[in-house]
Amino acid sequence: MMKPSLVKGTRDFGPAVMLKRKFIINTIETVFKKYGFMPFETPALEQLDTLTGKYGNEGDQLVFKILDSGDFAANCDEETWALKSSKKIAPKLTEKGLRYDLTVPLARYVAMNRNEITFPFKRYQMQPVWRADRPQRGRYREFWQCDIDCIGSDSLINEAELLTIADLIFSQLGLNVTLHLNHRKLIEAIATKFNIGDKFNAFVGLIDKLDKVEFKTLTPEFKELGLSDEQATALQKILLLLPFNEESIAIVKDNLNDLEQATVGCDTLSELAKYINVSKLNSPICLNLSLARGLDYYTGCIIEIKANSVNMGSISGGGRYDNLTGVFGLPGVSGIGISFGIDRIYDVMEELNLFSDLAQTDVKAILCHMDEQGRLYNYNLANQLRNEGLAIEVYPDIKKLPKQFEYAEKKGIALVIITGNDEIESGQLSYKNIKTKQQGKIDKNELSTFISTISHI
Amino acid sequence: MMKPSLVKGTRDFGPAVMLKRKFIINTIETVFKKYGFMPFETPALEQLDTLTGKYGNEGDQLVFKILDSGDFAANCDEETWALKSSKKIAPKLTEKGLRYDLTVPLARYVAMNRNEITFPFKRYQMQPVWRADRPQRGRYREFWQCDIDCIGSDSLINEAELLTIADLIFSQLGLNVTLHLNHRKLIEAIATKFNIGDKFNAFVGLIDKLDKVEFKTLTPEFKELGLSDEQATALQKILLLLPFNEESIAIVKDNLNDLEQATVGCDTLSELAKYINVSKLNSPICLNLSLARGLDYYTGCIIEIKANSVNMGSISGGGRYDNLTGVFGLPGVSGIGISFGIDRIYDVMEELNLFSDLAQTDVKAILCHMDEQGRLYNYNLANQLRNEGLAIEVYPDIKKLPKQFEYAEKKGIALVIITGNDEIESGQLSYKNIKTKQQGKIDKNELSTFISTISHI
Repeated sequence: MMKPSLVKGTRDFGPAVMLKRKFIINTIETVFKKYGFMPFETPALEQLDTLTGKYGNEGDQLVFKILDSGDFAANCDEETWALKSSKKIAPKLTEKGLRYDLTVPLARYVAMNRNEITFPFKRYQMQPVWRADRPQRGRYREFWQCDIDCIGSDSLINEAELLTIADLIFSQLGLNVTLHLNHRKLIEAIATKFNIGDKFNAFVGLIDKLDKVEFKTLTPEFKELGLSDEQATALQKILLLLPFNEESIAIVKDNLNDLEQATVGCDTLSELAKYINVSKLNSPICLNLSLARGLDYYTGCIIEIKANSVNMGSISGGGRYDNLTGVFGLPGVSGIGISFGIDRIYDVMEELNLFSDLAQTDVKAILCHMDEQGRLYNYNLANQLRNEGLAIEVYPDIKKLPKQFEYAEKKGIALVIITGNDEIESGQLSYKNIKTKQQGKIDKNELSTFISTISHI
Repeated sequence: MMKPSLVKGTRDFGPAVMLKRKFIINTIETVFKKYGFMPFETPALEQLDTLTGKYGNEGDQLVFKILDSGDFAANCDEETWALKSSKKIAPKLTEKGLRYDLTVPLARYVAMNRNEITFPFKRYQMQPVWRADRPQRGRYREFWQCDIDCIGSDSLINEAELLTIADLIFSQLGLNVTLHLNHRKLIEAIATKFNIGDKFNAFVGLIDKLDKVEFKTLTPEFKELGLSDEQATALQKILLLLPFNEESIAIVKDNLNDLEQATVGCDTLSELAKYINVSKLNSPICLNLSLARGLDYYTGCIIEIKANSVNMGSISGGGRYDNLTGVFGLPGVSGIGISFGIDRIYDVMEELNLFSDLAQTDVKAILCHMDEQGRLYNYNLANQLRNEGLAIEVYPDIKKLPKQFEYAEKKGIALVIITGNDEIESGQLSYKNIKTKQQGKIDKNELSTFISTISHI
């Protein structure tokens, strides 16, 4: 007899958790569809050569690899085998891996189906991804990504639409967020202004830390990159959060001495601001020059969304990329995308108690009974009520009523109908409202109307 | 530059396919919820010792195994390593595998969470499973299962409910099916009647073939199991398809000489017939004594559903099991479940052209323009229309109108709105109905009402 267990870093989602996850997913999907984005899915398994070399050395290590079927040892020459080195032999044992994100499979799909796809290709994709990471609080080996991308259009209307979509989603989820916006060219301009030269990556790495630590704790490290005290002070001022509007863009332009990169970035943001101005966003949107994520691939606007009053980092992020499919032989395809972290959004909403209004079940009434005759009567009645559009349960077994009530209460079913011999004869069914404790009789012909008026627990 | 490809036996699902799959999945899910079944999901990765030993030797071979992270070679002793045998070394390299079906993970979950679960546990689960099978037409290495089970109740009302649910789903999908029903005890009674003894498995294997081949082609093999010519004729008669009702059950009882096993099976079916009689099923339901699938685990009723007038085998099947969780240390848990094969249902519906009424998109109108001014106007207008509940696209780029119309047509958007300078000034927007070719002008304040009346392409 074995004691079963889960794989470390993975989770079962029982009904209570699933209902909350589905609420998030359905809310997101409904908004996506309103904007003409289409559903899309890729397989969990990808060729290893599709996956590797896309996520950096560290990422490659985190790809789950599938052991080849058949006689893998035979595929390895004697000499290599004799080394008994996991690193050398692994490539002989495996040619498939598990999806690590949704972007690389999308790029592969676009490259493979370039002639069939209608561009601009507006797709969304909500699927799990897997990473052989060390599990810890909030970090899982299987987690859900929800990506929305528009590929094959470089119009800034897409940036505006994605920001509007994100704003709408979070406001419908009841989650207060702030939208952060930056542009790659502005980071480059800052680097130019402070003569960062070939230390660009180190500089960006430092800037990226500023959402977690105060500027002054990083001052020594900025100095190591060659900044004087005065320059550090100037940098800190430049990186201050501003509301996203024309006035702020002008300040940035001025701060960056009208460097050419700054002009390009600011002009792009000005163009975008025209659309944002008419978007009537619910959330504040700010220009955050210290937003420096994903500079390996983002070439234009960079977007990050943070929940207000929760210490969780970003719950959504994205940006413009100009070379999505180049690595798969299709250069010059521009796109923009945002990824919503379902698991993080879930955690934040749970922390803020935002699921409290969610019904535990669609079922408003359960039909109970004391004997076989009552059960058959209820079975028939339930099917009639379902035909009228209601979600109904019949308690399946013949057990004592308190046991049946307990089931109703645990499942969050608001109304219990009790069918005994008297009830069958008179057509007047007994009911008990689990929430209000109200009891009484109801004519079976009025039951469906009555159930419709009951609110969930 | 690499030429990207899919892993053999896996598929991308582009938007057109996804919409059809979602139609199937949503239809199924809506019915499940109406009967009080709750959503549930398990991880793709399971411990190998959870998976192995549950699907027979052949099944064990088909489980995809994940290569351990880290230095797996070090975990293997020198002697075993030197053998260079894939079979001997594989267990040292891997301790995790991919989900092979949804039943074993469910059993694991129930065993692990027995104290928190509300029984009867009515759950549904729709997730992909993976099998390292040889890919062929209609057989994939990644495919979707959709399981519904009621665990912890031995009432036959559950059998009736699942049959009703299946009937409702297929009728809502527009798919004509026949429900097939059998009981394990009846197969046992047949084996007893013909003195099959310890050749039960071989006997069942033959009977199971009868949905593909005629009886007479198997007669020699039945004879090998000890049946005389007369007995073979008697067997053929017993296995004839009957409508599922009291009369047929009486015939079966009579055919099987009132053997004790037959009495148990027939009494169970009689009890079930009471519920089926009041279920007003849309599909024919028949008693099929040659239905002999899954006898490794089914202990009571066996269910199979076949599409009429399509050569596809079963598209759904299930049954009653009395020892789901025994292997995980929780004996005596009875349940019943049905599995819907999403991929097969999809293939059948495609073959029968049942998706032809499905809209290609929720978007009824796209807003087009010739310049920046028109685009900004349209962006604003689109957001207003979306606020009124409509799904709307704005063509993102500034391109020639025929290019924009082509996009609309390819995406299946029925109505094109064209905003030029005259339109902005007058508030009278130009429109073109892609389907009817009708063109005209519409006041912008009447646009949302107008769009609501447009039917999809």
